[in-house]
Amino acid sequence: MRLFEPLRAGAMLIPNRVMVPAMVTHLCREDGLVNEEIIARYSRYAAGGAGLIVVEAMAIHQVKSGPLLRISDASYIPGLRELARRVHQVSDARIVPQIIHFLKAARSGWRQTVDMLSAADIDRIVEQFGDAVARAREAGFDGAELHAAHAYTLSSFLSRTNPRGDEHGGRTLEGRLRLVGRVMENVRRKAGGDFPVGVRFNGEEHIKSGYSVEDAKLIALRLAELGASYLSLSAGGKFEDAVHTPGQVLFPYSGYSGDRAMPGDWLPRALNVRVAAEVKAFLASRGHRTPLAVAGKLSDPADAERVLADGAADLVAIARGLLADPDWPRKVKRGELDRIVQCDYCNVCKTMDGAHRPVVCTLWPKGALQAPAREAPGAAPRWSDGGSGLGATLKDAGVMLSWRKASDAEYYDVYRSEGAGGEPRFLDAVKATLWTDAAALGGRTYRYAVRARDASGRAGPLSGTVAVETPTPDYLTI
Amino acid sequence: MRLFEPLRAGAMLIPNRVMVPAMVTHLCREDGLVNEEIIARYSRYAAGGAGLIVVEAMAIHQVKSGPLLRISDASYIPGLRELARRVHQVSDARIVPQIIHFLKAARSGWRQTVDMLSAADIDRIVEQFGDAVARAREAGFDGAELHAAHAYTLSSFLSRTNPRGDEHGGRTLEGRLRLVGRVMENVRRKAGGDFPVGVRFNGEEHIKSGYSVEDAKLIALRLAELGASYLSLSAGGKFEDAVHTPGQVLFPYSGYSGDRAMPGDWLPRALNVRVAAEVKAFLASRGHRTPLAVAGKLSDPADAERVLADGAADLVAIARGLLADPDWPRKVKRGELDRIVQCDYCNVCKTMDGAHRPVVCTLWPKGALQAPAREAPGAAPRWSDGGSGLGATLKDAGVMLSWRKASDAEYYDVYRSEGAGGEPRFLDAVKATLWTDAAALGGRTYRYAVRARDASGRAGPLSGTVAVETPTPDYLTI
Repeated sequence: MRLFEPLRAGAMLIPNRVMVPAMVTHLCREDGLVNEEIIARYSRYAAGGAGLIVVEAMAIHQVKSGPLLRISDASYIPGLRELARRVHQVSDARIVPQIIHFLKAARSGWRQTVDMLSAADIDRIVEQFGDAVARAREAGFDGAELHAAHAYTLSSFLSRTNPRGDEHGGRTLEGRLRLVGRVMENVRRKAGGDFPVGVRFNGEEHIKSGYSVEDAKLIALRLAELGASYLSLSAGGKFEDAVHTPGQVLFPYSGYSGDRAMPGDWLPRALNVRVAAEVKAFLASRGHRTPLAVAGKLSDPADAERVLADGAADLVAIARGLLADPDWPRKVKRGELDRIVQCDYCNVCKTMDGAHRPVVCTLWPKGALQAPAREAPGAAPRWSDGGSGLGATLKDAGVMLSWRKASDAEYYDVYRSEGAGGEPRFLDAVKATLWTDAAALGGRTYRYAVRARDASGRAGPLSGTVAVETPTPDYLTI
Repeated sequence: MRLFEPLRAGAMLIPNRVMVPAMVTHLCREDGLVNEEIIARYSRYAAGGAGLIVVEAMAIHQVKSGPLLRISDASYIPGLRELARRVHQVSDARIVPQIIHFLKAARSGWRQTVDMLSAADIDRIVEQFGDAVARAREAGFDGAELHAAHAYTLSSFLSRTNPRGDEHGGRTLEGRLRLVGRVMENVRRKAGGDFPVGVRFNGEEHIKSGYSVEDAKLIALRLAELGASYLSLSAGGKFEDAVHTPGQVLFPYSGYSGDRAMPGDWLPRALNVRVAAEVKAFLASRGHRTPLAVAGKLSDPADAERVLADGAADLVAIARGLLADPDWPRKVKRGELDRIVQCDYCNVCKTMDGAHRPVVCTLWPKGALQAPAREAPGAAPRWSDGGSGLGATLKDAGVMLSWRKASDAEYYDVYRSEGAGGEPRFLDAVKATLWTDAAALGGRTYRYAVRARDASGRAGPLSGTVAVETPTPDYLTI
């Protein structure tokens, strides 16, 4: 599989194409220091076989912002060095920190915007990025990634909504590019031109008057010219359409652009791949081979492989899918697809992020701060001799399934196929022994099955199948 | 060209694949009656060679709403009959009215939502749609189109944000589909099963928690099962993210979803084609060949032809491009591409729509309510012997072009190419003799040219070319 071919990104040899993109964990405290839980989180990804691990965003400055890692002075280096060292002990995965600057925000809903920054403020940000990446090198990371996506400072300068009228301003694309350009130049100077530096940015802003793939192509071109070691495409996640909850700081993943940054179960799989393909083709047309990563509901192994086979991107970034199951790469490589703990895009992790609580997956054992080390030994969950008892009832709210508890079951995967020859597809993962299909169309035959998993994700057998004929709506039969 | 192959949509034979989708004109008065300006508008599309003309939305009910056509009782039939008759006199284009129901809205920003409707209200809407389509048949139209897109009642029921908890409700996809299903059934009963009825709906809602192509595929499937004669895909245009201007009724094209419904110049061309291709392929996989139309920045003839050649859709709906130049089909058929008056997606027409003022194109002669009948006889615009005087200056705001006025010039097209072998591409159409390129990247050579057009759209020769080397930003040269 192409997923397991190595990739060179600048001076960094990445052993395979599976990337853990930056995900806030909120496992640190307000002090912003690396701790054992954080080391455990990233070591677990290494043990699972990911090729490139991007550590959650760490701030280059000392603005108050809840539990968030810092790289804003030398005192953070020992902890970061320990993180890099411990992850390197586990596998040959490459590990880079995501480096972030963000503006101030208040619980009133007020937030600082880029037009409030003085020239001196901007100069300081340029220097802080350079110093932070130099610290990342000193700490033993394999490279660093600049966060120029979503709602943060570099992205706000790149935005079509950048309101500044000066040389860093939104009147021209060059003006919008200026800050990230100066930052890259300073990073090169302070951390060395041979130190791999990737940049994450938005392929589409998904806000009113925001930029689309047309600008993203030109932004990518400039970043390639700046010598970025890799580019990483995300989308949305903006403050402009965020929904303000009274008394809380604006959460930039709470509006439509937030839906697009962390797409829920109702949005399509692989939804940013088309944008990646356009950016990749544009870069190639200008002679640039800078590796490109793409994220966005790519936890289906066939989708992930297709991204690479089609040449749409060079790295497949899987956030929530690897949070649910850090062993995804190992299992895919071995062809153990049924053993993957599949993310159902319920976005409870997103809610935890918004609440500044430790980000865990609901499919992990109750109360656990980390994914299980490996599948538990012993017997897999199974139903007693009476079987699963899987039954389906037609209700106003859709097709209601119910089944018996299986031994040692922590939760159940639900599968559906349509018609006679349809492939059963994973639909959801639920803790209860009840589930309702609200998307079943009338006048069809659906087949359902469930499978129990224990707290370690170990899968039991598929239940028997129950077939349901949904009633044809009255207006169709007349 | 496939663009000029006929297409059968139910009992309707459409002479070619170019469609005028519904565009509000605000040419009628509050009385909602057809007048000569409206007849002139639609006759002009027929003269220009469009295959299917959808007349702007006409209301099935008597809610106050500014200048908007009505089909809400028999008194409107004579005017509508005259419209259909006059358009039929001009060409073999098929003409269908778009039939709409919308809810109440106030200048305070308040608006009625679907959960405020009683069962009796819903029953009344079902009957009103049936009666309206029966009137469309009586008036001599070739079919009718139900408006189930954007911010209006049928679309609000289809929405994933439908808040109703009953049988017409958002708890299930079947509930969301129920109203449009009942409407189709009533329309068939009252207007006859042989009367062609198309449905326009959104491929994506582009609002927080709104539906995506995944639901659009199932909506399309149900509409095909209901016997829709054609389907027409649009996107966005919702109230949920509309920006309220104090003292004005909410305009559903004022938020990001509005950007997606009427994409401005910064959004990609052909931006809904991928969604159309997915819907089309899904319908085909279920054995349905219902013709599909797609809209969204498709006024580039090569793009339009490609949509058909790739099988992404069966009809190419061009709204603003045909408003700018109703002769687009005729000119494309004859290969007279340079003669097309090209829409630059400035969206002044959208602003006029929002202000309830007559919707015209800024590229038409000043003060005109209609596109010019044909190109003026006599000489084309040209520069005097001194030439165009085209010059380019580097400014903070980008590359500033200026040129001399040409004789009889009403406006100028601006073209740009990049590098040595780059094709010149149309970028903008401007009335002044000044234009600034704010999207030029530094460190490149761009070539610019302009072309004058007279008030009838008649094109003069291309000016000479001016080449500009943009300065490389300082941070790239270090």
